[in-house]
Amino acid sequence: MITKQQVLEFLKDYDSENITIATVCSHSSLQIFDGARKEGFKTLGICAGTPPKYYDAFPRAKPDEYLILESYEDLIDRAEELRKRNTIIIPHSTFIAEFGKENFLEIPVLVFGNRAAIEWESDMDKERKWLLGAGIHMPGKIDNPYDIKGPVMVEYEGAKGGKGFFVAKSYDEFNKLVDRTRKFTIQEYITGTRYYLHYFYSPIRNEGYTLSKGSLELLSMDRRVESNADEIFRLGSPRELIEAGICPTYVITGNMPLVARESLLPRIFSLGEQVVEESLELFGGVKGAFCIEAVVMDTLEIKVFELSTRIVAGTNLYISGSPYSDLMQKGLSTGRRIALEIKEAARTNQMDKILS
Amino acid sequence: MITKQQVLEFLKDYDSENITIATVCSHSSLQIFDGARKEGFKTLGICAGTPPKYYDAFPRAKPDEYLILESYEDLIDRAEELRKRNTIIIPHSTFIAEFGKENFLEIPVLVFGNRAAIEWESDMDKERKWLLGAGIHMPGKIDNPYDIKGPVMVEYEGAKGGKGFFVAKSYDEFNKLVDRTRKFTIQEYITGTRYYLHYFYSPIRNEGYTLSKGSLELLSMDRRVESNADEIFRLGSPRELIEAGICPTYVITGNMPLVARESLLPRIFSLGEQVVEESLELFGGVKGAFCIEAVVMDTLEIKVFELSTRIVAGTNLYISGSPYSDLMQKGLSTGRRIALEIKEAARTNQMDKILS
Amino acid sequence: MITKQQVLEFLKDYDSENITIATVCSHSSLQIFDGARKEGFKTLGICAGTPPKYYDAFPRAKPDEYLILESYEDLIDRAEELRKRNTIIIPHSTFIAEFGKENFLEIPVLVFGNRAAIEWESDMDKERKWLLGAGIHMPGKIDNPYDIKGPVMVEYEGAKGGKGFFVAKSYDEFNKLVDRTRKFTIQEYITGTRYYLHYFYSPIRNEGYTLSKGSLELLSMDRRVESNADEIFRLGSPRELIEAGICPTYVITGNMPLVARESLLPRIFSLGEQVVEESLELFGGVKGAFCIEAVVMDTLEIKVFELSTRIVAGTNLYISGSPYSDLMQKGLSTGRRIALEIKEAARTNQMDKILS
Repeated sequence: MITKQQVLEFLKDYDSENITIATVCSHSSLQIFDGARKEGFKTLGICAGTPPKYYDAFPRAKPDEYLILESYEDLIDRAEELRKRNTIIIPHSTFIAEFGKENFLEIPVLVFGNRAAIEWESDMDKERKWLLGAGIHMPGKIDNPYDIKGPVMVEYEGAKGGKGFFVAKSYDEFNKLVDRTRKFTIQEYITGTRYYLHYFYSPIRNEGYTLSKGSLELLSMDRRVESNADEIFRLGSPRELIEAGICPTYVITGNMPLVARESLLPRIFSLGEQVVEESLELFGGVKGAFCIEAVVMDTLEIKVFELSTRIVAGTNLYISGSPYSDLMQKGLSTGRRIALEIKEAARTNQMDKILS
Repeated sequence: MITKQQVLEFLKDYDSENITIATVCSHSSLQIFDGARKEGFKTLGICAGTPPKYYDAFPRAKPDEYLILESYEDLIDRAEELRKRNTIIIPHSTFIAEFGKENFLEIPVLVFGNRAAIEWESDMDKERKWLLGAGIHMPGKIDNPYDIKGPVMVEYEGAKGGKGFFVAKSYDEFNKLVDRTRKFTIQEYITGTRYYLHYFYSPIRNEGYTLSKGSLELLSMDRRVESNADEIFRLGSPRELIEAGICPTYVITGNMPLVARESLLPRIFSLGEQVVEESLELFGGVKGAFCIEAVVMDTLEIKVFELSTRIVAGTNLYISGSPYSDLMQKGLSTGRRIALEIKEAARTNQMDKILS
Repeated sequence: MITKQQVLEFLKDYDSENITIATVCSHSSLQIFDGARKEGFKTLGICAGTPPKYYDAFPRAKPDEYLILESYEDLIDRAEELRKRNTIIIPHSTFIAEFGKENFLEIPVLVFGNRAAIEWESDMDKERKWLLGAGIHMPGKIDNPYDIKGPVMVEYEGAKGGKGFFVAKSYDEFNKLVDRTRKFTIQEYITGTRYYLHYFYSPIRNEGYTLSKGSLELLSMDRRVESNADEIFRLGSPRELIEAGICPTYVITGNMPLVARESLLPRIFSLGEQVVEESLELFGGVKGAFCIEAVVMDTLEIKVFELSTRIVAGTNLYISGSPYSDLMQKGLSTGRRIALEIKEAARTNQMDKILS
């Protein structure tokens, strides 16, 4: 991974008044480019093959220029050029998936946020260590099927889009449904409603909801639209579907907006705080946008099942502000918040604190 | 309850150019304070113990000052101080629950809206009398289980968050599922889609959608997110869940935005009108924000299952306006509408008409 | 149907600086009038009987004047008057349903969009020809029940609101459930999540996402709220409901907002492009607003089940802009986009290209 030392060296050659914000043309790029432009940055769209034509339909979000590659892996060879153009890369999950995690960790270009966080979130054991270390409640892992006492979610290794995942309400049901020829994990199934909480942690702001260092923001929240799990009840109950050989799947196709009851906000901020403080201990801290993926139970307890340490696609709902971010600054999207953070860091000479 | 006479006396000492808007720091307080500030009011957050830290993250909604109590019941002793500060309290359900309904009815401070409405809505028999008296269709109550002819919802007395409530599709099913050792009520189960309709009734405006006195507005609508009922189909059908000993519950964790088809608006306005006109007959009228909680059936009939006579949390979605309120005034939230009403009443010397 | 020649003749007498935008007072009329006013047009509300009172509650959307009819069919007699007032009619589905499709096709007044499109979309065979001709994937039609291999949706002819429609997961289930005394069609049941995609095709703009002629826009998207199908899982699974004699129904009562993952946008734009290009071949082209009603599968394939070639009610969510339209022009609704198109056509003398 790029070291702090390297970051400082790159920064020496950067013209902080002439920064270009770049990302791969997908996922949340419309929002990122729109936000960057609103804060006065130049924008660069990275794409393999022809630039996507859909940008033409969204003139306010169309990047100023494209970096056209044959394949995303070629990006590694363009690092010097990107540095010369004073480029800051905004990572998102498509970027990391297409470019490769190892490439992403090693590319010698300035990246917004802390690359170490990506390493921690993408390793299930590390992620669990991080969250549990922070005192956060996660669904329990069940090593021995005999220990199944209530509903569980059973996941097969490497199943794309959750194909074949199933819920069982008891040990008996688990036993009847499980395919023992495949490798699986068993997790406590939490009944409740899903919330994807969009936070922003600034290591350079010392106002607002302050932590041991920097400050925490809640910009918005969404519920993911999962195909086909969300609407499959129209076809049959889980048992009826199994009998017919039909599998629920959990592929994200989009996002719906929502708000949480205000009395949950203290707990929601604590969760964010716990995640940030523990990350500061473990690896120098998550920086910028992150998302906690949670279930709110009927006891109003919140259980966390996953973490994303970068801008998530659910923020695309809020390109012109959200019921939360509007209480900070009217019309603030996560993309724009990222641009603002870079601007603030450039102005106050603290770029090394927000980049990696 | 505070009398009209007392209200008039309190008002004599109020400086209507120096009003402070106060509420308990929860529920819809961010929206209330944001709206109050936008209309130029001072704001006061009432809290038991330390003020919630999350306000720091939302600078536009943070109250100017706090009234810090040891327990909410102490508020009763601060009434004189509140009056001296020209305070108007905006009630919400957390406020009333924490402070106690009796205390709320009696505290000698000016309150936005009509306290009598709270008395009527919180008593199930009175609420039913009000709604049926207004000619509004509610789900039928079934006194004798033998009269069950279609789907019913069975509710146990005092069950928190609807724990143990169940639906039955027939008398036989009811019979199999009911716990006769507990006290229960049976209600017709209305199949359809839930809408929570956010109205505003102004007794001092005589333009717009006018009623016998004052005028009616529709500011927004939402669908409540209920844990765990909303997503429990992923685990099993009602029957499968019962067999596994798992209960659907109906605890509100948040809200999602929606709009109704425009052809429903005449009926939606009639419902609001009926509620207001009957309330004027019964107790001098609901005032300000209220919410009708309804199911729209596939016949496009609307059945009402509950009423809230104050700002509801679903309005938190619309802190920067809604598809309805934007057609009155761009960016109008219910919180801001409340502040506007107070401003208008102060300017035209009609404070007694909107407070109690 | 009114010919191109007639359109040109009507246009000769129109004063393009003094246009009135008219529609029937329902469906999406609030949005249409709001958008028209924002672009400086006069507005005319067409209604049978008294104008709906709910307009009084939405002053920004209230039409300047009403054309009050005894019954919608009388509109045909007012055509000359409408032309003299330089009226352009914006059709929506309530308009067409109330007025009658034949009347709509024949009324000698200028109409926004291409009336021929309405003819094509309203005939199921023509619609299928159009979509399949465009290379778009639709759910398969199954002529012979013996060919049922997976889940199917069975629809009875003329069933209002989808009453009696049922899903079957296999031939056996179909066989058990079908009422062979009624006329039915069998369609492949696509599991996934529903998206209603709101497009705008401008034949007069040559910038943005350009097609063979004109340009394509994506203004927003929604999910329809269907009563009682959306929430009926709370009562029972499809099989449990059937046993209890309860039918799922599919009556639209409203709409919820959502966004699709950005990586779907290339496919979403291709779909729009295919629909437009094929329509140009078939009948001179859909013009203005249209909607593709689709299911996104867990493979991220998109299957199209229907088409609407006019403004749809789901756009009512976005009266002040959407996460997509805001990237073109802040606050742009479909209603306003229509008004903009008329303004642009009037200014550049191309009215004949957008009207029929």
